[in-house]
Amino acid sequence: MRCFITGVAGFVGSNLADRLLAEGHEVIGYDNFSTGSLENIRNALTYSQKFKCSKADILNRKDMVRGMAGCDIVFHLAANADVRYGLENPAKDLEQNTEGTFSVLEAMRESGVKRIVFSSTGSVYGKPDIFPTPERTPFPIQNSLYGASKLAGEGLIQAYCEGYDFQSWIFRFVSLLGKRYRKGFVVDFYKKLKADPKTLQVLGDGTVKKSCLNVKDCIDAMLIAIKKSNDKVNIFNLGTDEFLSVKDCAQKVASYILLKPKFNYQEEKLGWVGDSPFIYLNCNKIRALGWKPKYTIKESIEETLEYLIDQDCRNSL
Amino acid sequence: MRCFITGVAGFVGSNLADRLLAEGHEVIGYDNFSTGSLENIRNALTYSQKFKCSKADILNRKDMVRGMAGCDIVFHLAANADVRYGLENPAKDLEQNTEGTFSVLEAMRESGVKRIVFSSTGSVYGKPDIFPTPERTPFPIQNSLYGASKLAGEGLIQAYCEGYDFQSWIFRFVSLLGKRYRKGFVVDFYKKLKADPKTLQVLGDGTVKKSCLNVKDCIDAMLIAIKKSNDKVNIFNLGTDEFLSVKDCAQKVASYILLKPKFNYQEEKLGWVGDSPFIYLNCNKIRALGWKPKYTIKESIEETLEYLIDQDCRNSL
Repeated sequence: MRCFITGVAGFVGSNLADRLLAEGHEVIGYDNFSTGSLENIRNALTYSQKFKCSKADILNRKDMVRGMAGCDIVFHLAANADVRYGLENPAKDLEQNTEGTFSVLEAMRESGVKRIVFSSTGSVYGKPDIFPTPERTPFPIQNSLYGASKLAGEGLIQAYCEGYDFQSWIFRFVSLLGKRYRKGFVVDFYKKLKADPKTLQVLGDGTVKKSCLNVKDCIDAMLIAIKKSNDKVNIFNLGTDEFLSVKDCAQKVASYILLKPKFNYQEEKLGWVGDSPFIYLNCNKIRALGWKPKYTIKESIEETLEYLIDQDCRNSL
Repeated sequence: MRCFITGVAGFVGSNLADRLLAEGHEVIGYDNFSTGSLENIRNALTYSQKFKCSKADILNRKDMVRGMAGCDIVFHLAANADVRYGLENPAKDLEQNTEGTFSVLEAMRESGVKRIVFSSTGSVYGKPDIFPTPERTPFPIQNSLYGASKLAGEGLIQAYCEGYDFQSWIFRFVSLLGKRYRKGFVVDFYKKLKADPKTLQVLGDGTVKKSCLNVKDCIDAMLIAIKKSNDKVNIFNLGTDEFLSVKDCAQKVASYILLKPKFNYQEEKLGWVGDSPFIYLNCNKIRALGWKPKYTIKESIEETLEYLIDQDCRNSL
């Protein structure tokens, strides 16, 4: 396969590129390097014949059309993934996620590529009333600009499938963890503990539950779905059957780096406005295709910490 | 109340303005007059003390902020309502409906207005599997750019309710009919019959069912909901319990204007790609507030035809 990946230098994109290249596929990468890094694609760059990467923004359609020529499929992973800071700059999610997705779709139409994989989010379920939440849960109400922008992206993709005969695989993820992860609560705890090993201030009251998936499991699921699910619009939840409280996660992080801090919690349940009280997805649909996660949440936390420690060692050399 | 109406010179906007002015409210109107007309607001303009109207686009935020100052509520009705031609210019729905709604929300935030009424659509249900379709039907898949753009608008509004403490009333309409309606199948049949009274070419095979609501019933429902429903996000279907086939509608139009044409149908069921096979909404939620439609679909078709005939008479004077 010749694959076009937007956000190739990001967390999911770079892990996906490594996997596709290892399997012998060709990868045309695209990234504006606003949050992605050259470090992430260092391995991919060693596949000089099979990997190319452009530094450009997905809102720049012309460059994308050129890169997409002759590709079999587009993995559209570029996005503003900062759920938490949406309210400080509400235009960002709209531009990068909704308008960005539109730009990718138009570039596909122009270059004749008709298959798209999209990284959506469990946040599109808002505050669900069914747990674990299935794909066809009652029509939800959005509670974050991030979720709203991804929902808008899904809608555009679905309309292109109907109107222009596209085919799509839309994945609604829980939080991901693993190598190259640089955001979210594990990273937050790790950084805070490095700054102050004696006290860990946790956002929220610690009772919020988190269901996390290892990025390698996530990529497995995406590749299995593309192969085995052949509807016009294929929507899959991706998550684990497990969850941990934020409190458990904080303790896991501290103990793994051999610290015993005092844990401080806030009175408010949620860490911030729009934070999901609980994203816990029913993954029966993807499991029916033979997929199941290989990593527990604790193993994924460890892997993320190993990566962070490794990065710190390199940086201090 | 001091009300800001986007799309005030359009079909729903002008009827709403007339109603609010008649009840003694103040109306600040906003329209780019791309499809709205001065003719539509001729009555509103007679309320010189209570009605003001700016000619500007909702993407022009600065002008909106000025107009919204001191308003109690925004009725955001401006939109590209051309469901059918979305595929010819896919940017139009995104810009006018999604980005336009974002612009209205930002203008509200800047001017301190926190209550918004939004004209969404039954098209957000895609191809429903439950009839009549309730508001909380299983999470739908979009099949038109119009539906996708309105869904995106809903999501933005909902996220603003959560994040910025806005309050919203979102109405998912079936097709509307009544005075000042200038699109859709009734108008299409009327115009075709004027051009050729002997033959009526109907889009689709005529079996598609339509549930239509009179614009006066629609406005009644909106005003009742604002008064009686006080959640953060209030979502209501608006429609009738009746429906007619396209064939019945075509016959009704022809017989009302005393013609007996030959009716030609197409082989394809749907009139165009993305056309909803059937939008038929469960309106129990709004009915529980004491609302019910006063007009049958046939009466609404007659009223629409009376308006069209009246316009033609004026134009021929």
